[in-house]
Amino acid sequence: MKKTNISPKVIRRLPRYLWSLDDLAEAGIERISSGELAERVGMTASQIRQDFSCFGEFGQQGYGYNVETLRKAITGILGICKGYKVILLGAGRIGQAVLEQVDFQRFRFHVLSAFDIRPERIGLTICDVLVRSEEEMDDFIREHSVDIAILCIGRTCAQKVVDRLITNGIRGIWNFTGVEVSAGKSDVAVESVHVTDSFLSLTYQINRKAAET
Amino acid sequence: MKKTNISPKVIRRLPRYLWSLDDLAEAGIERISSGELAERVGMTASQIRQDFSCFGEFGQQGYGYNVETLRKAITGILGICKGYKVILLGAGRIGQAVLEQVDFQRFRFHVLSAFDIRPERIGLTICDVLVRSEEEMDDFIREHSVDIAILCIGRTCAQKVVDRLITNGIRGIWNFTGVEVSAGKSDVAVESVHVTDSFLSLTYQINRKAAET
Repeated sequence: MKKTNISPKVIRRLPRYLWSLDDLAEAGIERISSGELAERVGMTASQIRQDFSCFGEFGQQGYGYNVETLRKAITGILGICKGYKVILLGAGRIGQAVLEQVDFQRFRFHVLSAFDIRPERIGLTICDVLVRSEEEMDDFIREHSVDIAILCIGRTCAQKVVDRLITNGIRGIWNFTGVEVSAGKSDVAVESVHVTDSFLSLTYQINRKAAET
Repeated sequence: MKKTNISPKVIRRLPRYLWSLDDLAEAGIERISSGELAERVGMTASQIRQDFSCFGEFGQQGYGYNVETLRKAITGILGICKGYKVILLGAGRIGQAVLEQVDFQRFRFHVLSAFDIRPERIGLTICDVLVRSEEEMDDFIREHSVDIAILCIGRTCAQKVVDRLITNGIRGIWNFTGVEVSAGKSDVAVESVHVTDSFLSLTYQINRKAAET
């Protein structure tokens, strides 16, 4: 496989390809043309060929793509099915919604524990995950070699908590706080979900369409 | 203002600029250089100048940007403060988390009602928003000329509900169902939040960093 850096834009499209390939595999389909795949994911065939060429040559003229080869390649690139260990920080509505919405088991991620500072939440179980006191967090991360922390805590303490996570050896942070957090000079990966920004992207589209008519 | 199409990438950065400009305005600061603004939002000065040049010329050599002018321009482009009317479909955890997380009032959006099919949720009030029966939805949208629907319902019925919304004259759909929905040939704007895709983007980064070391 090519060892080049794949652009974030292509990376963001890979899951969409994967969902389609999963459906195809489930239906017993072994190969697919770029044109057929394009139709399924709502893109053009040439865009798909270009995306896939970023990480190697999988297609064959006149044959198309082998579904299983492509699935394995994308799964490998995305780092899925590596059994990463995950914790949730902040067991409020947003944290609960994330646990509910994301099918961690499907990708063999293990959500080991949730943590919260509010006494009334400690001891609860949400989506089969026990909520522990925030005071136990540092020891827990080190003992279990936790890989990923999902950040669903308040804005004001977000960066402080991130610094603590990094000190304890976390490798990735999924940030739902709505503020930018920095991994500093560390090697820790940060991915932020800015829900409000996406909403304003919608109102921009509405606004533009209104201006056109 | 230039009437060109601004790239989605630039649009997605605009809210970040706006939050910084809001902070500056609140602190009584009237102008800022591209370098100073760059530092605040974690980008380069030249990237900022390039972004702003997409929608007009606001900066002046040696003077920088006027904070208020820039705020108004971005607010105008994003279609904020137009008093758009919003409804929520699906008053489960995800719907509740969205209502809680997004500061609709700040942008003068009015969340008029929520709708759900589950009898036990109808009549509840979440974040000051009343949950009505899904059966009342069509009439409600037309009576109140609702602009935007937030979709927090199950995957299986997502497209059907979208078709219904479009028939009733909705202008924008904010899609949290995790499946792609299509506005067909209509002029309706759709913005999807794919939470799982963002998670896989994080695992890709972790995986790549592990491969590098």
